[in-house]
Amino acid sequence: MDNEPYGQLMAHARDTLALGQVAALLAWDQETMMPRQGAPARAEQVGALEAAIHARDCDARVGDWLAALAEADLAPMAQRNVALIGRRHRRAVRVPGALAVALAAKTSRAQGVWAAARAENDFAAFAPALAEIVDLKREEAACLAQDGAAYDALLDQYEPGMTAARLTTLFDGLGQALAARRAEIAPRAGGEPRIAGVFPAQRQSALAPELARVFGYTLDAGRIDTAVHPFCSGAGRDVRVTTRIDEADPTGNIFSLIHEMGHAVYEQSIDPDRALTPVGTYASMGVHESQSRLFENQIGRSRAFAEWLFPAMEGALGPLGPKTPEGLWRALNRVEPGFIRTEADEVHYNLHIILRFGLERDLIAGDLAVAALEDAWNASYAALFGHQVPTPAEGVLQDVHWSIGAFGYFPSYTIGNLYAAELFSAMEKAIPDLDAKMAAGDLGPVRAWLAPRIHAPGAERDPEALIAAAIGRPPGEAALIDYLQRKFRGLYPAD
Amino acid sequence: MDNEPYGQLMAHARDTLALGQVAALLAWDQETMMPRQGAPARAEQVGALEAAIHARDCDARVGDWLAALAEADLAPMAQRNVALIGRRHRRAVRVPGALAVALAAKTSRAQGVWAAARAENDFAAFAPALAEIVDLKREEAACLAQDGAAYDALLDQYEPGMTAARLTTLFDGLGQALAARRAEIAPRAGGEPRIAGVFPAQRQSALAPELARVFGYTLDAGRIDTAVHPFCSGAGRDVRVTTRIDEADPTGNIFSLIHEMGHAVYEQSIDPDRALTPVGTYASMGVHESQSRLFENQIGRSRAFAEWLFPAMEGALGPLGPKTPEGLWRALNRVEPGFIRTEADEVHYNLHIILRFGLERDLIAGDLAVAALEDAWNASYAALFGHQVPTPAEGVLQDVHWSIGAFGYFPSYTIGNLYAAELFSAMEKAIPDLDAKMAAGDLGPVRAWLAPRIHAPGAERDPEALIAAAIGRPPGEAALIDYLQRKFRGLYPAD
Repeated sequence: MDNEPYGQLMAHARDTLALGQVAALLAWDQETMMPRQGAPARAEQVGALEAAIHARDCDARVGDWLAALAEADLAPMAQRNVALIGRRHRRAVRVPGALAVALAAKTSRAQGVWAAARAENDFAAFAPALAEIVDLKREEAACLAQDGAAYDALLDQYEPGMTAARLTTLFDGLGQALAARRAEIAPRAGGEPRIAGVFPAQRQSALAPELARVFGYTLDAGRIDTAVHPFCSGAGRDVRVTTRIDEADPTGNIFSLIHEMGHAVYEQSIDPDRALTPVGTYASMGVHESQSRLFENQIGRSRAFAEWLFPAMEGALGPLGPKTPEGLWRALNRVEPGFIRTEADEVHYNLHIILRFGLERDLIAGDLAVAALEDAWNASYAALFGHQVPTPAEGVLQDVHWSIGAFGYFPSYTIGNLYAAELFSAMEKAIPDLDAKMAAGDLGPVRAWLAPRIHAPGAERDPEALIAAAIGRPPGEAALIDYLQRKFRGLYPAD
Repeated sequence: MDNEPYGQLMAHARDTLALGQVAALLAWDQETMMPRQGAPARAEQVGALEAAIHARDCDARVGDWLAALAEADLAPMAQRNVALIGRRHRRAVRVPGALAVALAAKTSRAQGVWAAARAENDFAAFAPALAEIVDLKREEAACLAQDGAAYDALLDQYEPGMTAARLTTLFDGLGQALAARRAEIAPRAGGEPRIAGVFPAQRQSALAPELARVFGYTLDAGRIDTAVHPFCSGAGRDVRVTTRIDEADPTGNIFSLIHEMGHAVYEQSIDPDRALTPVGTYASMGVHESQSRLFENQIGRSRAFAEWLFPAMEGALGPLGPKTPEGLWRALNRVEPGFIRTEADEVHYNLHIILRFGLERDLIAGDLAVAALEDAWNASYAALFGHQVPTPAEGVLQDVHWSIGAFGYFPSYTIGNLYAAELFSAMEKAIPDLDAKMAAGDLGPVRAWLAPRIHAPGAERDPEALIAAAIGRPPGEAALIDYLQRKFRGLYPAD
């Protein structure tokens, strides 16, 4: 066996992955530190770096090394590395350079057009730009898909192995159950306790290190800053989270932190011996999101964890409004009909995703024209949510994703919720005193269960196989439906 | 005329310069924001990025474009761009890849060895690593110099066109004048006023925006953070400075800020239409340093500016010790024999550089062995400073530069002082009420004089030609000697 091409391939991948980390740092800096006037130069820096990374991904030598390794007798992890590099290389070479440049140019401009249209509440002002992007994405998807389905090829970027057919199955059952739950709760909602007061930013910030300690986010290998839209960025021993602070509502900060720390703990816990190798990266966006959602919802918004969170919040912030852990739990899980995905409760959230999935699948298939998108959105919204969208800013214009060409991304959010419910359900069986541990703020057993099964393995397997191995069977929608049913029947008991 | 190769050459240079800005951001982040455990991954990121930049600099197409343009009839600025790209391309291709890799590896390790040796006060612990670096730098210099002088080739990286012969002339006169001044002041020194008190960090930080306003540093295109060693980083509309804060001594923060803002105002004032082109970058390290030194010394430590600075400091910080602008000026310009370059006053500072220049020139020429360096340092120090070095940490081990292979860099500091004195002398003639303006904190006329002559032109000319054009004759050492003589005879009058 000739190991030479494998060593060269991996050395090449190592530098490419390191440059990807640099690109992530540029994005982090842009959202947290960059001076206002730095944006034009930053766009040129990002463009130059992306071009350098793309050139590496397309490098003909990568194709040669892969060909030389096609018949090689490699160890399983080496095989997996070769497969992951091959996947990335093929994606890169299949899209013609001119198309990639056109997409980058159009999406970079369209994001501004979208923001202006949203501010003006005018979908027609965004539609022409979006139509161009949809055309280019369909072209890109056709290149990527070869003989397969176009939308699946886009989905595969974020969730390797996932298909629209599989999602349709998962989402159909979930959507029906959620719509039923939504309808059941609606007449009972309205009297929940609310958090009320003024909570100074400095006091809110003082909670962050305590949350980091409890959730296991290592600050020596991370940092916490503020950003307009909270996010997590980085890998290994440099994983940074951001949050936003609203002095009228401390839960935005706290649950942004818990969510982003779910992402961050995952990245910090991938096997360090695999740093800067393809298997040493996260498994998929869905798996990533499962970690943030599990921390945020299954733990952070649980009745048990409220026993820890209530005194912690009251100690740092003073009187909250709710006077007991039970009251805090009810306040944190208020179900409210609303129009905005990012503000949605657990019952409504996945309905938002199901709506977007249907629409973007049809756009990419050519079954829905951009001109008809606003009407389609509003009709779908009314059917799923039971009321009407008042304005495009609260409807079809609310999310940035399509303007930046991120078709196939939305499903990751619900895939994350599905996986989180499956993992938590398995964990509940494996850790008999889990509620008591959460109530005490001891999440060590949670991380100890996740680390070997989900965190450390990185991209060792495709995401669904990874989850299946962790829970002992293929994941489905039943665990999430059951979790939501149990939780919200507790919060909003049937008559 | 075929413009095609010029457009391609400039597009290539544009991306290379943008990647250089990314490298600068990585360094800034490392010193200000990066979590402690992020260092190993950062080293890999920097390595991957430097390799990408180096590959672009060596790109054979650059050679082809340059060859195609050799006889082209280009406008003067285009000619200058081609010349600057050619210089950079030739430097890159002359150093064999293996040598560049060896240097990067050795210097990256040697920096840690140096830091440990300095902490242990043990030059012998550093000498073997330094000897390896000197050997590699001599090899590199020989590659770069072709038939020229080795040390000049290193100097040329930082100060294009400068030679050891020219420096020797400049430094000989300067060194004699400074040693005389030092000896003259020594018996008179000791009774100066001192700044004394506790000056909380928050109050010190409140001065920063006020200094930015007065010195013309645009914070919408910059930011201020703290770092162990203050520095300035960035270009154009994203130029960041750092400072350090010592609650026992507010002058460290204030004069770090003024110094770094000199660098920053230069970068912010280069013609924006030339952004990401070779002529749109700074002229040399010496010119850069001239701008920081002029702000720091000729303005910041002047008697006139003390009229503005004293009430500003007292207002922000409370009682300082000195009770008048005159007292503050005397405190800021205390002459003290000391061993550390970075803490030296204006009289002693350039003696430090003259010492290092002589030693590193001899090391690179092969006329001085690393084994004999400590003795040579101590002998040279005694001759120039009139007293003995007590420990290697206060002598030969005090600076990081040689451990990172930065031979030829030290002279930039004194070149900067020489140029600053020349520019200030010309400015004094051109702005009759300069003292009154400085006393009022109105530095608009200073920037208005510098902007078209020094800032905006960027790398339009080689540094000495740039200064000569600004002052109307070739720069020399007389202006600096005269400035120091006038200033320190005022502070320490002869009997």
